Amino acid sequence: MSIKYAERMDNLKASEIREILKLTERPEVISFAGGLPAPELFPIEEMKVVSRKVLEEMGQAALQYSATEGYPPLRKAITERMKVFGIESDPDEILITSGSQQGLDFCAKIFIDPGDVVVVESPSYLGAINAFKAYQCNFVEVPTDQDGMLMEDLENVLKNTPNVKYIYVIPDFQNPTGKTWSVERRKAFMALANQYDVPVVEDNPYGELRFEGEIPPSLKSMDPENRVIFLGTFSKTFTPGLRMGWVLAEKSILEKFILVKQGADLQTNSMTQRELAMFLEMYDLDAHIEKIKNVYRKRRDIMLKTMEETFPEGVTWTYPNGGLFTWVEFPEHINTRDLMVEAIKKNVACVPGGSFYPNGGRENAIRVNYSNMPEDRIVEGIKRLAEVIREAL
Amino acid sequence: MSIKYAERMDNLKASEIREILKLTERPEVISFAGGLPAPELFPIEEMKVVSRKVLEEMGQAALQYSATEGYPPLRKAITERMKVFGIESDPDEILITSGSQQGLDFCAKIFIDPGDVVVVESPSYLGAINAFKAYQCNFVEVPTDQDGMLMEDLENVLKNTPNVKYIYVIPDFQNPTGKTWSVERRKAFMALANQYDVPVVEDNPYGELRFEGEIPPSLKSMDPENRVIFLGTFSKTFTPGLRMGWVLAEKSILEKFILVKQGADLQTNSMTQRELAMFLEMYDLDAHIEKIKNVYRKRRDIMLKTMEETFPEGVTWTYPNGGLFTWVEFPEHINTRDLMVEAIKKNVACVPGGSFYPNGGRENAIRVNYSNMPEDRIVEGIKRLAEVIREAL
Repeated sequence: MSIKYAERMDNLKASEIREILKLTERPEVISFAGGLPAPELFPIEEMKVVSRKVLEEMGQAALQYSATEGYPPLRKAITERMKVFGIESDPDEILITSGSQQGLDFCAKIFIDPGDVVVVESPSYLGAINAFKAYQCNFVEVPTDQDGMLMEDLENVLKNTPNVKYIYVIPDFQNPTGKTWSVERRKAFMALANQYDVPVVEDNPYGELRFEGEIPPSLKSMDPENRVIFLGTFSKTFTPGLRMGWVLAEKSILEKFILVKQGADLQTNSMTQRELAMFLEMYDLDAHIEKIKNVYRKRRDIMLKTMEETFPEGVTWTYPNGGLFTWVEFPEHINTRDLMVEAIKKNVACVPGGSFYPNGGRENAIRVNYSNMPEDRIVEGIKRLAEVIREAL
Repeated sequence: MSIKYAERMDNLKASEIREILKLTERPEVISFAGGLPAPELFPIEEMKVVSRKVLEEMGQAALQYSATEGYPPLRKAITERMKVFGIESDPDEILITSGSQQGLDFCAKIFIDPGDVVVVESPSYLGAINAFKAYQCNFVEVPTDQDGMLMEDLENVLKNTPNVKYIYVIPDFQNPTGKTWSVERRKAFMALANQYDVPVVEDNPYGELRFEGEIPPSLKSMDPENRVIFLGTFSKTFTPGLRMGWVLAEKSILEKFILVKQGADLQTNSMTQRELAMFLEMYDLDAHIEKIKNVYRKRRDIMLKTMEETFPEGVTWTYPNGGLFTWVEFPEHINTRDLMVEAIKKNVACVPGGSFYPNGGRENAIRVNYSNMPEDRIVEGIKRLAEVIREAL
């Protein structure tokens, strides 16, 4: 059969992370590649209780079709949780999605005509880049420093670029860099977004996993003009396999997301939504998050300490105050795709940084995850990585 | 904020069914509007067993990220079940989706550039029409008789229409008409699809719910050229709330679906996939389907009998040998959108047929569901509907 796909398919190729993750399925590989939570912390016993209780108390409804918007008690519970980011919201402003990845796909579907522009941090989250690409957008990358996007560069872009449909940012423990925006930078950013009248997509999967300091106010909490679309998820604070995320947006914007959700998959899993709502009612998710933070903090500490002890001069890395990743940068002549080929030979894996730049051209960094491996394997893996780096330099 | 959405959003409006379903949430309404399975038949006790067992035996994996393609034992189990449709397949040809609605969305995403054509039965499934519309396709409708699409009309369309990207059909107990294609028509259809070298999307959510006669061979079973993309679901044979569907396609085509799945939501719920696989291993889904069929057969019988007794001359309906719907047609001067306004006043609801014609222009039919209401309410509801019809004629 001769077959002609849509033009958008020319833009899509398998995620490099996905290919690397396949290699890392071998148990002997020490993987810092994925963004996987520590599975030993999953609340399995609690899930047993809530799944039984949901089936006993509302089995028929849990297995039947339900509203596209999501299960009302879960939407309500999420508005409560949003307060930690300084956000006062209404259940009518929440749509339950199949992970926040679905929220990313919907943003592009709702806003992007071919050739439209999405402004992103440079580098930015690979999964978002791939989701947006499927709608044939162009990307403009704005450089960042340790306080967030550079405002002068952003203003320059907004002033001179036609058809900017939204700015996509991850202000808390960014994927891939682990950086967090300062409060001042957030304010300046919102002032520019208002001035140039651009929608903002704020992706915040990691914000609650803060190891030290206070959670800063989200962009959404500084948004009287209702231009921020906030994407949230339980993947990092609860479990990722259940695919529970949400979109929070002003009602007329959310109505577009609901329309798109209906065509995309009708609704998110009825039973899982009820299990999660029951979990939030019966147990203390904040206490569970404390447990996760304590483990990840130690893993970050031991990883950064081992880097300090073993990585050669000329290599730098970020100090994340939370989240899952650090970002390691090398001298410009180092191509980390080659470096990772060597690393895999020593049974250690990270993600080469190139894929996080939508317009390409920068290959001298890697994203390193510290949440998924136990401490002894972190030490061993970083030592192996140091050897590979020393050989390459 | 001034906001400019993508052009595709101009095509999308809330599904009429969804609006009607909201009205039917009032318990006094007898609803034949949805396509809802009978919830009293859901295997709740079995779900309790499998959810506990999955959490006990593989809790960490069930709550962790997993492969985009789906859980291997579930993909394998689906290949076994495909044999009922005469299909020999390989697990590598199966992608697990969030219901078959997601498969519909992906078909359009993979094939449709704005202005491309999708050929459909006239009428066709509203949810598919809406999913495809979001990708700015045009529709060409092909009339049907009681044996399926009319081949002369189809050939005429294929001969004279540029940019036909695929033909979308529901050959078994079609939504909305309840009609099933004859074997001869299937063969003729595949011959034309081969001759004109067009991909085919075969949507088969109801085929296993056959009350009498043998399950006919699917289009996919007559497809040596691998042009058929088969969409399946457990929504009607197991439960819809768990959102478990699949795409079966030749590997190079499936690879495109996997790419799109990755951007859309990474993967389908890890835990639910394992629960379903465990259910299929521990219990007899075919025996469960027998139970469902016995109940639906009786409901169909009592509905059609009551129609026979109460509907006035000039009204006709289909006799479905399975599935969930019958299709009632009225003289051309009757507009069923108006009819349904009157019906709702009498607390009975169906879906006006107009929305099932993507190009509009026909308003004299309704889709009537018989799976969801108990027998006494079916009798009462059809009697009320008869009164409304008599007043309108």
